[in-house]
Amino acid sequence: MAYTHVQTFNPEILYAFDPLNEAGNCSKTHSHNFLEISILLEGEADYLVDGSRQDLRTGTVMLFNPGVKHAERQKEGTFSHQLHIGLTNVSLNGLPRNHFPNKRALLDLGCYADAFMEKAWRVTKEFNEQRSEYQLMGKGLILEMLGLLLRSLEDGSDNTLPPALSQTAVRQQHLVNHAVYYLENHHSEEITLEQLAQQLFVSPAHLS
Amino acid sequence: MAYTHVQTFNPEILYAFDPLNEAGNCSKTHSHNFLEISILLEGEADYLVDGSRQDLRTGTVMLFNPGVKHAERQKEGTFSHQLHIGLTNVSLNGLPRNHFPNKRALLDLGCYADAFMEKAWRVTKEFNEQRSEYQLMGKGLILEMLGLLLRSLEDGSDNTLPPALSQTAVRQQHLVNHAVYYLENHHSEEITLEQLAQQLFVSPAHLS
Repeated sequence: MAYTHVQTFNPEILYAFDPLNEAGNCSKTHSHNFLEISILLEGEADYLVDGSRQDLRTGTVMLFNPGVKHAERQKEGTFSHQLHIGLTNVSLNGLPRNHFPNKRALLDLGCYADAFMEKAWRVTKEFNEQRSEYQLMGKGLILEMLGLLLRSLEDGSDNTLPPALSQTAVRQQHLVNHAVYYLENHHSEEITLEQLAQQLFVSPAHLS
Repeated sequence: MAYTHVQTFNPEILYAFDPLNEAGNCSKTHSHNFLEISILLEGEADYLVDGSRQDLRTGTVMLFNPGVKHAERQKEGTFSHQLHIGLTNVSLNGLPRNHFPNKRALLDLGCYADAFMEKAWRVTKEFNEQRSEYQLMGKGLILEMLGLLLRSLEDGSDNTLPPALSQTAVRQQHLVNHAVYYLENHHSEEITLEQLAQQLFVSPAHLS
Protein backbone atom coordinates (compact mmCIF):
# COMPACT_ATOMS: atom_id res chain seq x y z
CA MET A 1 0.00 0.00 0.00
CA ALA A 2 1.24 3.48 -0.83
CA TYR A 3 1.79 5.93 2.01
CA THR A 4 0.11 8.68 0.04
CA HIS A 5 -3.37 9.08 -1.39
CA VAL A 6 -2.31 11.09 -4.40
CA GLN A 7 -5.36 13.35 -4.86
CA THR A 8 -5.51 14.51 -1.26
CA PHE A 9 -1.75 14.57 -0.53
CA ASN A 10 -1.02 18.29 -0.72
CA PRO A 11 1.77 19.40 1.66
CA GLU A 12 2.31 23.07 2.38
CA ILE A 13 5.87 24.33 2.00
CA LEU A 14 6.53 26.58 4.99
CA TYR A 15 10.04 27.48 3.82
CA ALA A 16 12.93 26.38 1.67
CA PHE A 17 16.12 28.28 2.40
CA ASP A 18 19.81 27.50 1.97
CA PRO A 19 22.09 29.26 4.49
CA LEU A 20 25.86 29.36 4.12
CA ASN A 21 27.28 28.63 7.57
CA GLU A 22 30.69 29.85 8.67
CA ALA A 23 32.72 28.73 11.68
CA GLY A 24 31.05 29.80 14.91
CA ASN A 25 27.47 29.51 13.59
CA CYS A 26 25.36 27.41 15.87
CA SER A 27 21.76 26.67 16.77
CA LYS A 28 20.48 25.66 20.20
CA THR A 29 18.75 22.33 20.67
CA HIS A 30 15.22 22.74 19.32
CA SER A 31 12.37 20.92 17.65
CA HIS A 32 9.43 21.90 15.43
CA ASN A 33 5.73 21.12 15.39
CA PHE A 34 6.00 20.46 11.65
CA LEU A 35 8.26 18.33 9.43
CA GLU A 36 11.76 19.53 8.54
CA ILE A 37 14.16 18.14 5.97
CA SER A 38 17.78 19.30 6.25
CA ILE A 39 20.29 18.54 3.51
CA LEU A 40 24.03 19.15 3.46
CA LEU A 41 24.53 20.46 -0.07
CA GLU A 42 28.21 21.27 0.47
CA GLY A 43 30.80 21.21 3.24
CA GLU A 44 30.48 19.54 6.62
CA ALA A 45 28.62 20.22 9.88
CA ASP A 46 28.54 19.02 13.47
CA TYR A 47 24.99 18.00 14.34
CA LEU A 48 23.25 16.78 17.45
CA VAL A 49 21.00 14.19 15.84
CA ASP A 50 19.46 10.89 17.03
CA GLY A 51 20.80 11.56 20.51
CA SER A 52 24.48 12.04 19.72
CA ARG A 53 26.92 14.56 18.21
CA GLN A 54 27.95 13.57 14.72
CA ASP A 55 30.26 15.00 12.06
CA LEU A 56 28.19 15.05 8.90
CA ARG A 57 29.43 15.34 5.34
CA THR A 58 28.17 16.60 1.97
CA GLY A 59 25.13 14.62 0.87
CA THR A 60 23.75 13.93 4.35
CA VAL A 61 19.95 14.03 4.56
CA MET A 62 18.01 14.42 7.83
CA LEU A 63 14.27 14.24 8.32
CA PHE A 64 13.05 15.63 11.64
CA ASN A 65 9.56 14.55 12.64
CA PRO A 66 7.59 16.93 14.92
CA GLY A 67 9.15 17.09 18.39
CA VAL A 68 12.47 15.50 17.38
CA LYS A 69 15.29 17.49 18.95
CA HIS A 70 18.32 18.62 17.01
CA ALA A 71 21.08 21.25 17.09
CA GLU A 72 24.06 22.16 14.96
CA ARG A 73 27.33 24.00 15.13
CA GLN A 74 30.00 24.91 12.64
CA LYS A 75 33.49 23.99 13.81
CA GLU A 76 36.61 26.12 13.24
CA GLY A 77 38.01 25.72 9.76
CA THR A 78 34.79 24.35 8.31
CA PHE A 79 31.80 25.69 6.40
CA SER A 80 28.53 24.27 5.17
CA HIS A 81 25.85 25.07 2.63
CA GLN A 82 22.58 23.50 3.74
CA LEU A 83 19.03 23.38 2.41
CA HIS A 84 16.23 23.35 5.00
CA ILE A 85 12.67 22.59 3.94
CA GLY A 86 9.77 23.03 6.39
CA LEU A 87 6.53 21.19 5.58
CA THR A 88 3.10 20.99 7.11
CA ASN A 89 -0.26 19.51 6.00
CA VAL A 90 1.53 16.19 5.42
CA SER A 91 -0.84 13.22 5.72
CA LEU A 92 0.58 9.71 5.26
CA ASN A 93 -1.59 6.61 5.60
CA GLY A 94 -1.55 5.28 9.14
CA LEU A 95 0.79 7.95 10.51
CA PRO A 96 0.05 10.97 12.72
CA ARG A 97 -0.23 14.30 10.92
CA ASN A 98 3.11 15.72 9.66
CA HIS A 99 4.96 12.49 10.51
CA PHE A 100 7.13 10.42 8.21
CA PRO A 101 7.75 6.73 9.01
CA ASN A 102 11.47 7.09 9.85
CA LYS A 103 12.71 6.08 13.32
CA ARG A 104 15.98 7.98 13.11
CA ALA A 105 16.46 11.45 11.61
CA LEU A 106 19.63 10.48 9.72
CA LEU A 107 18.59 8.80 6.49
CA ASP A 108 20.35 6.46 4.11
CA LEU A 109 18.85 7.04 0.68
CA GLY A 110 20.83 4.27 -0.99
CA CYS A 111 20.31 4.21 -4.75
CA TYR A 112 17.99 7.24 -4.55
CA ALA A 113 20.66 9.55 -3.12
CA ASP A 114 21.89 11.04 -6.41
CA ALA A 115 18.40 11.77 -7.76
CA PHE A 116 17.45 13.28 -4.39
CA MET A 117 20.47 15.60 -4.30
CA GLU A 118 19.89 16.70 -7.89
CA LYS A 119 16.37 17.79 -6.91
CA ALA A 120 17.62 19.48 -3.73
CA TRP A 121 19.97 21.61 -5.85
CA ARG A 122 17.16 22.48 -8.25
CA VAL A 123 14.89 23.53 -5.34
CA THR A 124 17.74 25.75 -4.10
CA LYS A 125 18.09 27.33 -7.54
CA GLU A 126 14.32 27.89 -7.94
CA PHE A 127 13.91 29.56 -4.53
CA ASN A 128 16.98 31.76 -5.05
CA GLU A 129 16.12 32.87 -8.58
CA GLN A 130 12.39 33.35 -7.88
CA ARG A 131 11.38 33.26 -11.53
CA SER A 132 7.68 33.06 -12.41
CA GLU A 133 5.93 30.01 -10.91
CA TYR A 134 9.03 29.11 -8.85
CA GLN A 135 6.83 28.03 -5.96
CA LEU A 136 4.96 25.61 -8.22
CA MET A 137 8.25 24.25 -9.58
CA GLY A 138 9.50 23.92 -6.00
CA LYS A 139 6.35 22.07 -4.96
CA GLY A 140 6.72 19.62 -7.85
CA LEU A 141 10.38 18.99 -6.98
CA ILE A 142 9.64 18.57 -3.27
CA LEU A 143 6.83 16.05 -3.99
CA GLU A 144 9.38 14.04 -5.98
CA MET A 145 11.87 14.30 -3.11
CA LEU A 146 9.20 13.00 -0.69
CA GLY A 147 8.47 10.15 -3.11
CA LEU A 148 12.17 9.20 -3.17
CA LEU A 149 12.35 9.38 0.65
CA LEU A 150 9.34 7.05 0.95
CA ARG A 151 10.82 4.66 -1.62
CA SER A 152 14.08 4.49 0.30
CA LEU A 153 12.16 3.87 3.55
CA GLU A 154 10.05 1.14 1.93
CA ASP A 155 12.98 -0.73 0.39
CA GLY A 156 13.59 -3.04 3.32
CA SER A 157 14.97 -0.25 5.49
CA ASP A 158 15.56 -0.90 9.20
CA ASN A 159 14.64 2.75 9.76
CA THR A 160 10.89 2.34 9.19
CA LEU A 161 8.24 2.49 11.88
CA PRO A 162 5.05 0.43 11.60
CA PRO A 163 1.77 2.41 11.26
CA ALA A 164 1.09 4.22 14.51
CA LEU A 165 -2.59 5.15 14.30
CA SER A 166 -5.51 3.13 15.62
CA GLN A 167 -8.07 1.79 13.15
CA THR A 168 -10.52 4.46 14.31
CA ALA A 169 -7.98 7.21 13.69
CA VAL A 170 -7.20 5.81 10.23
CA ARG A 171 -10.94 5.84 9.41
CA GLN A 172 -11.15 9.45 10.65
CA GLN A 173 -8.10 10.35 8.53
CA HIS A 174 -9.72 8.91 5.39
CA LEU A 175 -13.01 10.67 6.16
CA VAL A 176 -11.33 14.05 6.49
CA ASN A 177 -9.17 13.52 3.38
CA HIS A 178 -12.24 12.63 1.34
CA ALA A 179 -14.23 15.59 2.66
CA VAL A 180 -11.43 17.93 1.57
CA TYR A 181 -11.24 16.18 -1.78
CA TYR A 182 -15.00 16.49 -2.34
CA LEU A 183 -14.91 20.19 -1.48
CA GLU A 184 -11.96 20.73 -3.82
CA ASN A 185 -13.86 19.16 -6.68
CA HIS A 186 -17.20 20.89 -6.20
CA HIS A 187 -16.02 24.49 -5.93
CA SER A 188 -18.50 25.97 -8.28
CA GLU A 189 -21.56 24.31 -6.74
CA GLU A 190 -23.35 25.29 -3.58
CA ILE A 191 -22.65 22.54 -1.07
CA THR A 192 -24.53 21.89 2.14
CA LEU A 193 -23.27 19.83 5.07
CA GLU A 194 -26.11 17.41 4.32
CA GLN A 195 -24.82 16.80 0.79
CA LEU A 196 -21.27 16.39 2.01
CA ALA A 197 -22.39 13.95 4.70
CA GLN A 198 -24.40 12.00 2.12
CA GLN A 199 -21.29 11.64 -0.06
CA LEU A 200 -19.32 10.34 2.90
CA PHE A 201 -22.06 8.06 4.27
CA VAL A 202 -22.05 9.73 7.70
CA SER A 203 -24.51 11.94 9.57
CA PRO A 204 -24.16 15.73 9.21
CA ALA A 205 -23.46 15.94 12.96
CA HIS A 206 -20.19 14.09 12.26
CA LEU A 207 -18.94 17.02 10.20
CA SER A 208 -20.12 20.09 12.09
CA MET B 1 1.48 37.76 -10.59
CA ALA B 2 1.76 33.99 -10.59
CA TYR B 3 -1.05 31.99 -12.17
CA THR B 4 -1.00 29.57 -9.26
CA HIS B 5 -1.58 29.96 -5.55
CA VAL B 6 0.84 27.27 -4.50
CA GLN B 7 -0.90 25.97 -1.35
CA THR B 8 -4.31 25.51 -2.95
CA PHE B 9 -3.13 24.46 -6.45
CA ASN B 10 -3.71 20.73 -6.36
CA PRO B 11 -4.66 19.25 -9.75
CA GLU B 12 -6.06 15.75 -9.98
CA ILE B 13 -4.42 13.45 -12.53
CA LEU B 14 -7.23 11.62 -14.32
CA TYR B 15 -4.87 9.57 -16.46
CA ALA B 16 -1.37 9.42 -17.89
CA PHE B 17 -1.01 6.80 -20.61
CA ASP B 18 1.32 6.41 -23.58
CA PRO B 19 -0.18 4.51 -26.53
CA LEU B 20 1.91 3.26 -29.46
CA ASN B 21 -0.07 4.11 -32.60
CA GLU B 22 0.31 2.15 -35.82
CA ALA B 23 -0.92 3.11 -39.29
CA GLY B 24 -4.70 3.09 -39.47
CA ASN B 25 -5.22 4.20 -35.85
CA CYS B 26 -7.52 7.16 -35.67
CA SER B 27 -9.76 9.04 -33.26
CA LYS B 28 -12.92 10.94 -34.20
CA THR B 29 -13.18 14.65 -33.55
CA HIS B 30 -13.86 15.08 -29.85
CA SER B 31 -13.31 17.35 -26.87
CA HIS B 32 -13.17 16.91 -23.07
CA ASN B 33 -14.68 18.72 -20.11
CA PHE B 34 -11.24 18.65 -18.44
CA LEU B 35 -7.71 19.63 -19.48
CA GLU B 36 -5.65 17.34 -21.70
CA ILE B 37 -1.96 17.54 -22.55
CA SER B 38 -0.80 15.44 -25.52
CA ILE B 39 2.88 14.98 -26.27
CA LEU B 40 4.54 13.30 -29.24
CA LEU B 41 7.31 11.36 -27.55
CA GLU B 42 8.40 9.61 -30.75
CA GLY B 43 7.36 9.37 -34.38
CA GLU B 44 4.88 11.59 -36.21
CA ALA B 45 1.10 12.02 -36.31
CA ASP B 46 -1.55 13.75 -38.35
CA TYR B 47 -3.69 15.90 -36.03
CA LEU B 48 -6.76 18.07 -36.45
CA VAL B 49 -5.75 20.90 -34.16
CA ASP B 50 -6.50 24.63 -34.03
CA GLY B 51 -8.96 24.19 -36.90
CA SER B 52 -6.67 22.54 -39.45
CA ARG B 53 -4.99 19.22 -40.26
CA GLN B 54 -1.30 19.27 -39.41
CA ASP B 55 1.59 16.82 -39.67
CA LEU B 56 3.20 16.84 -36.25
CA ARG B 57 6.67 15.64 -35.33
CA THR B 58 8.47 14.26 -32.29
CA GLY B 59 8.52 16.82 -29.50
CA THR B 60 5.18 18.46 -30.33
CA VAL B 61 3.17 19.50 -27.27
CA MET B 62 -0.59 20.23 -27.36
CA LEU B 63 -2.73 21.55 -24.53
CA PHE B 64 -6.47 21.15 -25.07
CA ASN B 65 -8.65 23.35 -22.88
CA PRO B 66 -12.16 22.05 -22.09
CA GLY B 67 -14.35 22.01 -25.19
CA VAL B 68 -11.48 22.38 -27.67
CA LYS B 69 -12.02 19.93 -30.54
CA HIS B 70 -9.29 17.67 -31.84
CA ALA B 71 -8.78 14.42 -33.74
CA GLU B 72 -5.86 12.35 -34.94
CA ARG B 73 -4.97 9.68 -37.45
CA GLN B 74 -1.89 7.66 -38.17
CA LYS B 75 -0.94 7.69 -41.85
CA GLU B 76 0.41 4.68 -43.77
CA GLY B 77 4.09 4.07 -43.14
CA THR B 78 4.15 6.08 -39.92
CA PHE B 79 3.93 5.38 -36.18
CA SER B 80 3.78 7.45 -33.05
CA HIS B 81 4.37 7.07 -29.34
CA GLN B 82 2.34 9.67 -27.46
CA LEU B 83 1.79 10.60 -23.84
CA HIS B 84 -1.69 11.86 -22.90
CA ILE B 85 -2.29 13.44 -19.51
CA GLY B 86 -5.82 14.27 -18.32
CA LEU B 87 -6.17 16.81 -15.51
CA THR B 88 -9.01 18.26 -13.50
CA ASN B 89 -9.25 20.44 -10.38
CA VAL B 90 -6.97 22.96 -12.09
CA SER B 91 -7.48 26.50 -10.76
CA LEU B 92 -5.40 29.31 -12.27
CA ASN B 93 -5.82 32.91 -11.15
CA GLY B 94 -8.35 34.74 -13.29
CA LEU B 95 -9.14 31.77 -15.54
CA PRO B 96 -12.20 29.51 -15.63
CA ARG B 97 -11.82 26.15 -13.89
CA ASN B 98 -9.60 23.64 -15.74
CA HIS B 99 -8.47 26.28 -18.27
CA PHE B 100 -4.92 27.22 -19.17
CA PRO B 101 -4.24 30.65 -20.72
CA ASN B 102 -3.25 29.37 -24.20
CA LYS B 103 -5.25 30.53 -27.24
CA ARG B 104 -4.06 27.75 -29.54
CA ALA B 105 -3.60 24.10 -28.55
CA LEU B 106 -0.24 23.78 -30.33
CA LEU B 107 2.43 25.14 -28.01
CA ASP B 108 5.93 26.45 -28.59
CA LEU B 109 7.89 25.78 -25.42
CA GLY B 110 11.03 27.53 -26.62
CA CYS B 111 13.90 27.13 -24.17
CA TYR B 112 11.74 24.97 -21.87
CA ALA B 113 11.17 22.25 -24.49
CA ASP B 114 14.05 19.96 -23.49
CA ALA B 115 13.29 20.06 -19.75
CA PHE B 116 9.61 19.46 -20.52
CA MET B 117 10.29 16.41 -22.70
CA GLU B 118 12.67 14.96 -20.12
CA LYS B 119 9.87 15.11 -17.54
CA ALA B 120 7.34 13.67 -20.01
CA TRP B 121 9.60 10.63 -20.47
CA ARG B 122 9.98 10.24 -16.72
CA VAL B 123 6.19 10.39 -16.22
CA THR B 124 5.88 7.67 -18.88
CA LYS B 125 8.43 5.53 -17.09
CA GLU B 126 6.81 6.02 -13.65
CA PHE B 127 3.31 5.12 -14.87
CA ASN B 128 4.54 2.07 -16.77
CA GLU B 129 6.75 0.70 -13.99
CA GLN B 130 4.24 1.46 -11.21
CA ARG B 131 6.82 1.22 -8.43
CA SER B 132 5.84 2.35 -4.93
CA GLU B 133 4.65 5.98 -4.78
CA TYR B 134 4.69 6.25 -8.59
CA GLN B 135 1.55 8.38 -8.49
CA LEU B 136 3.24 10.85 -6.11
CA MET B 137 6.33 10.96 -8.34
CA GLY B 138 4.05 11.48 -11.35
CA LYS B 139 2.23 14.31 -9.59
CA GLY B 140 5.51 16.05 -8.75
CA LEU B 141 6.73 15.72 -12.35
CA ILE B 142 3.41 16.92 -13.79
CA LEU B 143 3.40 20.00 -11.49
CA GLU B 144 6.85 20.85 -12.86
CA MET B 145 5.59 20.34 -16.42
CA LEU B 146 2.69 22.73 -15.71
CA GLY B 147 5.18 25.24 -14.28
CA LEU B 148 7.26 25.05 -17.47
CA LEU B 149 4.13 25.45 -19.63
CA LEU B 150 3.12 28.56 -17.68
CA ARG B 151 6.65 29.96 -17.92
CA SER B 152 6.67 29.50 -21.69
CA LEU B 153 3.23 31.17 -21.93
CA GLU B 154 4.36 34.09 -19.77
CA ASP B 155 7.58 34.75 -21.68
CA GLY B 156 6.11 37.25 -24.14
CA SER B 157 4.17 34.55 -25.96
CA ASP B 158 1.54 35.59 -28.54
CA ASN B 159 -0.42 32.51 -27.49
CA THR B 160 -1.60 33.88 -24.13
CA LEU B 161 -5.14 34.97 -23.35
CA PRO B 162 -5.84 37.79 -20.88
CA PRO B 163 -7.68 36.83 -17.65
CA ALA B 164 -11.25 35.85 -18.52
CA LEU B 165 -13.07 36.01 -15.19
CA SER B 166 -14.94 38.98 -13.81
CA GLN B 167 -13.69 40.60 -10.61
CA THR B 168 -16.61 39.01 -8.73
CA ALA B 169 -15.71 35.57 -10.05
CA VAL B 170 -12.05 36.08 -9.08
CA ARG B 171 -13.15 37.04 -5.55
CA GLN B 172 -15.35 33.92 -5.42
CA GLN B 173 -12.40 31.80 -6.67
CA HIS B 174 -10.15 33.14 -3.89
CA LEU B 175 -12.84 32.59 -1.27
CA VAL B 176 -13.32 28.96 -2.25
CA ASN B 177 -9.56 28.31 -2.49
CA HIS B 178 -9.05 29.74 0.99
CA ALA B 179 -11.96 27.77 2.45
CA VAL B 180 -10.42 24.55 1.12
CA TYR B 181 -7.02 25.60 2.45
CA TYR B 182 -8.45 26.36 5.92
CA LEU B 183 -10.22 22.99 6.00
CA GLU B 184 -7.03 21.21 4.90
CA ASN B 185 -5.10 22.77 7.74
CA HIS B 186 -7.58 22.24 10.54
CA HIS B 187 -8.33 18.56 10.04
CA SER B 188 -8.01 17.51 13.57
CA GLU B 189 -10.21 20.22 15.04
CA GLU B 190 -13.98 20.39 15.03
CA ILE B 191 -14.90 23.17 12.63
CA THR B 192 -18.28 24.87 12.36
CA LEU B 193 -19.48 26.91 9.39
CA GLU B 194 -19.48 29.92 11.73
CA GLN B 195 -15.75 29.52 12.45
CA LEU B 196 -14.98 29.03 8.77
CA ALA B 197 -17.01 32.11 7.85
CA GLN B 198 -15.22 34.11 10.56
CA GLN B 199 -11.83 33.14 9.09
CA LEU B 200 -12.97 34.26 5.65
CA PHE B 201 -14.72 37.44 6.82
CA VAL B 202 -18.06 36.46 5.27
CA SER B 203 -21.43 35.44 6.68
CA PRO B 204 -22.11 31.72 7.23
CA ALA B 205 -24.95 31.95 4.69
CA HIS B 206 -22.27 32.59 2.02
CA LEU B 207 -20.85 29.11 2.59
CA SER B 208 -23.89 26.93 3.06
